Amino acid sequence: MSEVYAARRDRLRERCHAAGSEAALVSGNANVRYLAGTAPAGAVLLVCPGRDVLLCPCDPCGGEASGPRAAEDLQVVVLAEADGDPAVAAAEHAAAAGRSSLAVEEHHLTVSRHRALRSVAPRLRLTDLGPAVEQQRLVKDDEEISSLRIAAEIADQALGELLESILVGRTERHLALELERRLVDHGATGPAFPTSVGTGPNSGLAGHLPGDRRVEEGDFLSVCVGADYRGYRSEIGRTFVIGTSPADWQIELYDQVFAAQRAGREALAPGTPYREVDRAARLVLEAAGHGERVGPGVGHGVGLENDEDPRLTPSAMGKLDACVPVTVDPGVHLPGRGGVRIDDTLVVRPEADGGPELLTITTKELLAL
Amino acid sequence: MSEVYAARRDRLRERCHAAGSEAALVSGNANVRYLAGTAPAGAVLLVCPGRDVLLCPCDPCGGEASGPRAAEDLQVVVLAEADGDPAVAAAEHAAAAGRSSLAVEEHHLTVSRHRALRSVAPRLRLTDLGPAVEQQRLVKDDEEISSLRIAAEIADQALGELLESILVGRTERHLALELERRLVDHGATGPAFPTSVGTGPNSGLAGHLPGDRRVEEGDFLSVCVGADYRGYRSEIGRTFVIGTSPADWQIELYDQVFAAQRAGREALAPGTPYREVDRAARLVLEAAGHGERVGPGVGHGVGLENDEDPRLTPSAMGKLDACVPVTVDPGVHLPGRGGVRIDDTLVVRPEADGGPELLTITTKELLAL
Repeated sequence: MSEVYAARRDRLRERCHAAGSEAALVSGNANVRYLAGTAPAGAVLLVCPGRDVLLCPCDPCGGEASGPRAAEDLQVVVLAEADGDPAVAAAEHAAAAGRSSLAVEEHHLTVSRHRALRSVAPRLRLTDLGPAVEQQRLVKDDEEISSLRIAAEIADQALGELLESILVGRTERHLALELERRLVDHGATGPAFPTSVGTGPNSGLAGHLPGDRRVEEGDFLSVCVGADYRGYRSEIGRTFVIGTSPADWQIELYDQVFAAQRAGREALAPGTPYREVDRAARLVLEAAGHGERVGPGVGHGVGLENDEDPRLTPSAMGKLDACVPVTVDPGVHLPGRGGVRIDDTLVVRPEADGGPELLTITTKELLAL
Repeated sequence: MSEVYAARRDRLRERCHAAGSEAALVSGNANVRYLAGTAPAGAVLLVCPGRDVLLCPCDPCGGEASGPRAAEDLQVVVLAEADGDPAVAAAEHAAAAGRSSLAVEEHHLTVSRHRALRSVAPRLRLTDLGPAVEQQRLVKDDEEISSLRIAAEIADQALGELLESILVGRTERHLALELERRLVDHGATGPAFPTSVGTGPNSGLAGHLPGDRRVEEGDFLSVCVGADYRGYRSEIGRTFVIGTSPADWQIELYDQVFAAQRAGREALAPGTPYREVDRAARLVLEAAGHGERVGPGVGHGVGLENDEDPRLTPSAMGKLDACVPVTVDPGVHLPGRGGVRIDDTLVVRPEADGGPELLTITTKELLAL
C-alpha cells in the first residue's frame, strides 16, 4: 500500500517543481491522509526532495494511536506541545534543509498561521500550492473505488434494515442514531456525515438535522445517510411515505424529483461539463414549477471527504472524467408540507463500460412503509 | 434571549471601535453562534454601526432550517450559490455601506479568502480582530453555565446507565454508540465530541477512537464522553476495571492519576495561572515516574466548543477567572498494558462560594464492573 502513497507524493513533487517550488506543505486533513495514508488531527505533510515528513501534533484529541498507520517510507515527527504549530515546525524544517521556496495550501492555511510561517522562515519564499492535491484526488483508483463500493453497500444495508423496523412514533433523532449504529454493525468506521432524517414538514430538506419530531401516518420520511469505510464516504438519500397509500401530491412530487434525479444520473459521462449535470436535473424541476425550490446544486464528488470536488452546480467549471465518484441528489421541499430528496452515489464510466456505475442500489420506487 | 446576543455584539463593537475598526467580520463558527444565537455551516456575522448582518450560504449541508433561531434584531441574508463566499459578500456589504475599515478573524480566515475580501473591497482597510470573541466567551454567564450543568448531568446519566449493562464481550465502537444514543435519550442534541472508549491496551489513551477490540476480564476500560446541550459541551472521563479484583499495578496507577486529577481540581481558583493547574497535576505524575507519559496539558475550557480557551498547559499564558468552566483530565498510558484517565468538568468559583463547582458527579472510586 505504501508505494501508492509514495506515487501520489511523487506526482505532487513533480507538479511542485514544474511550478518552481522546491517543497510543498500540505495541511488540508483529507489531503494529508491521501498522501500519507493517515492524518491525525492537526497533522501536516512536508513533501520535499529526499524523505517526506509527516508532522503530528501531540494532540490529546488526535486519537492518533488508533488511526490508520502512516506509509512506511515517511519520516514521522510527533511534536510536543511546546513545539507549537506543526505547519510552523515544517517551515523551519524546510528552511533548515536549505530549501528556498515552499508551496503552501493558501485555501487551508489561515492568515495567522501563514504569518507565523513567514516569521520563522523569513528567507523561505512562500508560494500558493492551490487545490493541487484536491485535483489529484478527483479521479479515484480501483482501491479507492472498491472502498467506496463497500461504503455504499454498508449504507444500503443499514437503510434496508431500518425500513423493516417499526417507524411510526419514533423521533428523527432516534432513527438517525439507529442508522448510525447499523452502519457500524456492518463494518463502517462511522457515519460519513451527520445522518439526516426528516419527517412530515421536515422531509426533503437538504441536510436537515434530526430533531424531536415523531414519524406520523401520512408523512413523507426522507433519509440521507452514508458510511465511512477506510476513510471513503458513501452517500444515499431516499424518501418514503408512511402509511398505506400516498396522497396525490406526494406521488406527483415524488415522480418529478425522481425524473430529475434520473436525468442527472443519465447525464453522467466522461467529458460532460459539471454544470450540464446540474442543468439536466434542474430543467426537469423547473418544468414542474419547482425552479425556485432546487438547491444550489444537484450533486458533488465523494471520496475522503463527503462533499468534495467536483461540484455539480450551475456555475461549476470543468468536465467529468471516468472514475470520478459523485452523488446525484436533487430534492424539492414545499414549506409546511415537506418534500422529496433522492440521492445516489455513482462512479462516472464511459458508455463502452456500461455508463455510470451505481454504487447505492436501494430501490428508488416510492415505498409506503 | 435576543438582548443577550445584542449585548455581546455591543461589547465586540466597542472593542472594535477602541481598536480603530468601524466593523468586524466574525467567521469562526462558535463565535458566530455566540453573537448571533445560531450559526449555520459557513455563516458569517458582520458587526457594524447600525444593524448587524448574519450572512448564511444557501448550503445544502447547513441544516439551517433545523438549527436554533437567529436573534430577532439581526438582519439575516441567505445567499444563493452564485453569491459565493459569505465572507466576501460581507466585505462587499461593508464597503457599500461606506465603511473604511473591517476587522477580520485572521486565525479563522484562510489566506485565499482574505485575498478574495481584499480584491472585492480594495478600499476597505482589513485589520486583525484576533481572538477577541474567544476572549469574550471565556467567562460564562448563568444561562451558559446552566446549559453546561444540564450537559454534564446528561453525560453522567448516560455513563451511569452504561455501567449497569453487561460490558464483557462488547466492542469499543458499540459501547461508544450506546453512550451516544443514551445522551440523546436524555435530551442532548448529540455528543459534544467523538466519544472515546478504550479497553485493555487502549485504555487511558487520550482521544482514542473506538475500534473493534472487545472488553475482556481484567481490562481497564476508559471512557470519555460529553453531551451537547443547546450548543454547550460537557466532558467526563472515567476508568474502570472489568472483573472482580483489580491487579496491583492497576490500583497503583489509578491512585496516582486520581491524586494528580485531584491536585489539578484543587488548584482551580480565580487568579491561578493556567500553567499552575497543569503543574499541580503534572508534579504528582512526575513524582510517580510518569512525567514522560503525561500529555501536553491536563485540561481545557469548555463551552460552545469542546476544546476552547483556556488551555491548562505548561506554556499557557493567563490566569483563571471565576465562572470559567474547564476540564481537569490528566491520564497515563503504559504502552502495551493500558492506562487511566480521569476527567471532570468544573466551573471556577471563588473560595467564598465554596471553590470549584463540580458539574460531572459520577464517582471517581475505582469501580470493578
